[in-house]
Amino acid sequence: MKTGEDQLVRKIAKTLGTKRPGGLALGVGDDAALLAPRAGFQTILTCDWFLEGSHFLRDKHPPESVGWKCLARAASDVAAMGGDPKHFLLSLALPRTLTGRWLDRFLSGLARATRRLGCQLAGGDTTKSDKILINVTVAGEIRKGRAVLRSGSKPGDLIFVSGRLGEAELGLQWLRQGRIARHRNRPCVKKHLYPEPRLALGRWVAEKGIATAMMDLSDGLSTDLARLCAASGVGARVEADRIPKVQVPISKRRNHLNVTELALNGGDDYELLFTVRPSQARRIPRAFRGLIISCIGEITRKQRLVLIGAGGREEALVPRGWDPF
Amino acid sequence: MKTGEDQLVRKIAKTLGTKRPGGLALGVGDDAALLAPRAGFQTILTCDWFLEGSHFLRDKHPPESVGWKCLARAASDVAAMGGDPKHFLLSLALPRTLTGRWLDRFLSGLARATRRLGCQLAGGDTTKSDKILINVTVAGEIRKGRAVLRSGSKPGDLIFVSGRLGEAELGLQWLRQGRIARHRNRPCVKKHLYPEPRLALGRWVAEKGIATAMMDLSDGLSTDLARLCAASGVGARVEADRIPKVQVPISKRRNHLNVTELALNGGDDYELLFTVRPSQARRIPRAFRGLIISCIGEITRKQRLVLIGAGGREEALVPRGWDPF
Repeated sequence: MKTGEDQLVRKIAKTLGTKRPGGLALGVGDDAALLAPRAGFQTILTCDWFLEGSHFLRDKHPPESVGWKCLARAASDVAAMGGDPKHFLLSLALPRTLTGRWLDRFLSGLARATRRLGCQLAGGDTTKSDKILINVTVAGEIRKGRAVLRSGSKPGDLIFVSGRLGEAELGLQWLRQGRIARHRNRPCVKKHLYPEPRLALGRWVAEKGIATAMMDLSDGLSTDLARLCAASGVGARVEADRIPKVQVPISKRRNHLNVTELALNGGDDYELLFTVRPSQARRIPRAFRGLIISCIGEITRKQRLVLIGAGGREEALVPRGWDPF
Repeated sequence: MKTGEDQLVRKIAKTLGTKRPGGLALGVGDDAALLAPRAGFQTILTCDWFLEGSHFLRDKHPPESVGWKCLARAASDVAAMGGDPKHFLLSLALPRTLTGRWLDRFLSGLARATRRLGCQLAGGDTTKSDKILINVTVAGEIRKGRAVLRSGSKPGDLIFVSGRLGEAELGLQWLRQGRIARHRNRPCVKKHLYPEPRLALGRWVAEKGIATAMMDLSDGLSTDLARLCAASGVGARVEADRIPKVQVPISKRRNHLNVTELALNGGDDYELLFTVRPSQARRIPRAFRGLIISCIGEITRKQRLVLIGAGGREEALVPRGWDPF
């Protein structure tokens, strides 16, 4: 009564835990998962591609990182609304040759992420393919009326970001250049391989009700800020000097390395971008549980994005972040 | 402020409708969708791969069929629990060359499925790839405690299936052989290209509370019945003569065409398989809204699958349905 796909599903379910967590009425092994939403809460639903060749490289990215990151980046969309990721569906398509050691290492990274993020496997779909194809759906929850959308920014609001921008992009550049073993422990490489969605900060922002809009930075500040502004029908002025940029050790500095470019256009940081009414701005701390928070500019009525450079020189802030097309 | 991916998302949202349907607090265009589950209902969550080369062929399957079927087959998993599909996330990865006419035709087929199934777009993810990659997540709802699982079959229960089995597989064989135009209107080809998930029957079975277990037939009876039996810890005896088989016009009969094989192992029918206590069996009609329902055998304590052939000869019913591995 056993088939290849069924064996694979059992392996996944076994590695990722089969105990039924809160809110899950039925998990892996039936036609679908059954969730029992709590009264007074809404369900946040999001999905994310994670494809070999586009989002990661089989020979550069350790399988543990692929497992961690496919869940972390989908969970980041839940953080971006202020919610809690609770359950996920794993859609995994693999070459048959990778269903042994590679899959074990992938699942160990994914299992670590499920524990870290408090997000449990509820189901999924597996099949065979030439390349590694991953799609993760995360179902989260948030108290009714608390979700922070992209569309609420008003002229005059101040713009905040968490963390330092461009770190993950620099990590990727180092990873592409060298052997993994040499770079694995550098913070930028770690941030690229094992990003931490800003769940605690997102929850805090939503609970306090102090942000007018919020989103996560997955494709780069220049591209994502343009999306937030488009959704809100506003523009923005950003001061280049105030953007928290990746810090590069002197020994690693190269002439061609432009940290402002990295911070503006580098993807995969999974930091939070949010806007706050000026009267509420003093409630935003300079750091939240060790994570720095910076005010980088303000929302404008005029629907353009402006970057203020050295000496007050203004230029258009053009979206040059990640775009697959 | 525009990027390629954003334009694609706008096109999808425009074609599939942007009005906010019931239960959806926030749809396309933010980090995630927000669902507002109704009190007393549970959320059914399922996802399904639909990949070029594995599940459909670019030169054989019209784009409208790809659009229809990617949603219909995921919705079938919701029908299999007795629920109502309400919202879906579309994860779509395409070669750039297909973002014009192919995408338009794909979206028109998908839009038709959303109207037919009452299932609205709530979000998704788009990216670029060499092959067409699709993953659909469907969120459905069902009154608390009403979902019909795979795991409730008991020895003595009678086994029912809807429709005729093997039709979609025969349709695929014809499609592979000939030019699409010549075959498009044959019922078997239509069933393969535009399957109808059995939502009304699934809902009826769940509401009446008459089934001990239920699932949909996506990979073939021999494989799916083995899964239902494994989940329930039971076996089954199936009478070959009682399986409702695809009907082949005399002009199309070939010596090598074995309709019993097609009915046992052909995939993609999306009919329902369910089991009923003998005392309840008289409540199952011979047809439900024009769809025939057949009793094909019974559940046994002994955990084997047995096929009873001509003259009462018994043989093992081996799972020979679709398995990607």
